[in-house]
Amino acid sequence: MKLVYLNSLQCVWCGHEHQPSIKYKCDQCGGSLEVTYDYDSIFQNVSLDQMLGRREDTITAFRELLPICPDMKPVSLGEGWSPLQRASELEQRLEHQQIYTKNEAVNPTLSFKDRPLAVALSVAKQFNVSGVVTASTGNTGVAAAAYSAKAGIPCHIYVPKGTPKEKLAMMEVYGAIIDEVEGNFSDAYVVAGEEAEKKQWFNLTSTFLNPYAIEGDKTLAYELYLQYDGVPDWIVIPIGAGPLLVSCFKGFKELKRAGKISKLPRMVGVQAENCAPIVRAFQESRDHVQPWDKPDTIAGGIADPLTSYPEDGTRTLMTLYESKGYAVPVSDDNIRKYQKLLAQGEGIFAEPSSVTAVAAIESMKNDGALAEGESVVSVITGHGLKDLKSLL
Amino acid sequence: MKLVYLNSLQCVWCGHEHQPSIKYKCDQCGGSLEVTYDYDSIFQNVSLDQMLGRREDTITAFRELLPICPDMKPVSLGEGWSPLQRASELEQRLEHQQIYTKNEAVNPTLSFKDRPLAVALSVAKQFNVSGVVTASTGNTGVAAAAYSAKAGIPCHIYVPKGTPKEKLAMMEVYGAIIDEVEGNFSDAYVVAGEEAEKKQWFNLTSTFLNPYAIEGDKTLAYELYLQYDGVPDWIVIPIGAGPLLVSCFKGFKELKRAGKISKLPRMVGVQAENCAPIVRAFQESRDHVQPWDKPDTIAGGIADPLTSYPEDGTRTLMTLYESKGYAVPVSDDNIRKYQKLLAQGEGIFAEPSSVTAVAAIESMKNDGALAEGESVVSVITGHGLKDLKSLL
Repeated sequence: MKLVYLNSLQCVWCGHEHQPSIKYKCDQCGGSLEVTYDYDSIFQNVSLDQMLGRREDTITAFRELLPICPDMKPVSLGEGWSPLQRASELEQRLEHQQIYTKNEAVNPTLSFKDRPLAVALSVAKQFNVSGVVTASTGNTGVAAAAYSAKAGIPCHIYVPKGTPKEKLAMMEVYGAIIDEVEGNFSDAYVVAGEEAEKKQWFNLTSTFLNPYAIEGDKTLAYELYLQYDGVPDWIVIPIGAGPLLVSCFKGFKELKRAGKISKLPRMVGVQAENCAPIVRAFQESRDHVQPWDKPDTIAGGIADPLTSYPEDGTRTLMTLYESKGYAVPVSDDNIRKYQKLLAQGEGIFAEPSSVTAVAAIESMKNDGALAEGESVVSVITGHGLKDLKSLL
Repeated sequence: MKLVYLNSLQCVWCGHEHQPSIKYKCDQCGGSLEVTYDYDSIFQNVSLDQMLGRREDTITAFRELLPICPDMKPVSLGEGWSPLQRASELEQRLEHQQIYTKNEAVNPTLSFKDRPLAVALSVAKQFNVSGVVTASTGNTGVAAAAYSAKAGIPCHIYVPKGTPKEKLAMMEVYGAIIDEVEGNFSDAYVVAGEEAEKKQWFNLTSTFLNPYAIEGDKTLAYELYLQYDGVPDWIVIPIGAGPLLVSCFKGFKELKRAGKISKLPRMVGVQAENCAPIVRAFQESRDHVQPWDKPDTIAGGIADPLTSYPEDGTRTLMTLYESKGYAVPVSDDNIRKYQKLLAQGEGIFAEPSSVTAVAAIESMKNDGALAEGESVVSVITGHGLKDLKSLL
């Protein structure tokens, strides 16, 4: 099988191009890589309108715009097409019309991670790897375990010692092999990388490491375009390193390139105020993100200090600038407050990290960033049930 | 607002017809009620093909075939369109081609109950009730709490004393009022009924009590028709009292009436072998279901002995006969075995009750009920994460 529509893996920093293969870093400068496409060939074979009209799972519907062979059935659990809903109660409370939620908790393993992992396991099958490996403490691990099970590929997950039993049980049920690593997530990250290297297993670890996986996040843009019937003014996304935000924006740029839309949305990155390396850099108008010293927040899913890969944060920062976007820090108190408001007003039970995307709207209004009449979509990235303990 | 397409609430036992209103029992004989429609009027205004072509949530897409006013926006959290997937690993293991899963865990509150509760709360708004009430220990309670929050209607849930903290937390997060009742589910059922009567609140309790709610289950049939592109030979559904099975079959009968299909699927009801009142009646070719003495199974979601409403079981039994269907008991050991197989082979983590729909296929094959070449769809009714404790 061949990845026929792919041009290259291009370094986002120095521009050097590589043949599509299992690769995570630029040969020249060590920078992170991005999949580039031969869009003319793609749209010669299938029009964007044809793709947008398909009713299959999102990865299958948009497979020609993803690093998936045309003659391959993608590894899918039926991900995507999560609901976009008007948030009437929030609109009243915030005295702002046109607030929407895109509820990614309605996915097979209850988070947006199903998009990149469906693509990652499809690519793993194409490359005929004998196993996949990831470091994770949460959503990525659960999604990796489930999609590996569907693909019939062994999955090895490294978790930091002390990861809650519930999360381990969720990964174990799908048959993943789990190893606890002394230390924190960064230590697990290193061990996973070493194993991937040694065994030539495919490394699915989040952040921007795997250039293929994050392409799956683009499908969020295609769906939003269809469901919103156009382009919302603002899209608010909780960010750790920020691949969802960057890839969602890439998806909109592809829609613009194909002539479907003429304007682009403005992207908003949200972080917990006690772990906000990208927000801090944005607020200080810097051109590089510095790691955060001591993360301290209940929003575990985005509590990434970017210790060993601050340049991933910089990549997200550049998208914020490019999209004329914005960045917002949210306090734990506001997360607790908005978790309740979102559940009781909109019927959506979101995990603490996800709630930041809604809490941020209040700040955007207070700061004057969000003008009257502008529409805003908050992306709810994961289900609250996965972190029920924080509630009990 | 008027329920313009509704003909009546008709008694399923004596045929007596009533004006659509808040009503749970036949005035003449006390039997359970069913919504009947003026199909000619419906299809004069909108064709079935038009409905099938819509991309909205399932309740909105099929609103004209539900007890929802045409000029009302249904109460929705984006339910439905759950994935239908080929189960290749199970096919190999059971040496039978054409096995599919319809994964209802991919719904906003992680179970099929989102379908009936979306309809129930839409109807509650139409009748302008001041509150809703339900007895529940599980999926119904969580869905009722979430959809009530979205509808902005107070929700009172009666649970038996000793209901696990996790399930109470899930209902509480949406702002429902929860009261523990001394005794078991039947006691909670009685108290909920009394409160509904006294306060004139809408009673959402599962089983066949609320004639409007269960109409939402028909959407499963419309989706299956579209996703399967026709009619599968067998549809396997875990049953307590069995409203999902009965309403799904009603949906297929509507499709046949509208000329979209010429044959009907054969319906299979599955129960845990230590709480199997309907299966027992089917196996003994009886025409009435008797309550079960002492339920004893890990499949909590379908462990309904039908103590105070065995006639609800009889209604389901009649559908099994009408559809030339089948009934299967499943042991707890097989539930545990298939929970693992389903997660590790297909990437689907299902609650114990749901797993019975897959385990049943083995029995159908062994009994000679399922012939070679026949297709079978197992409906996975709820997510395993809701019952993680049984795993830990």
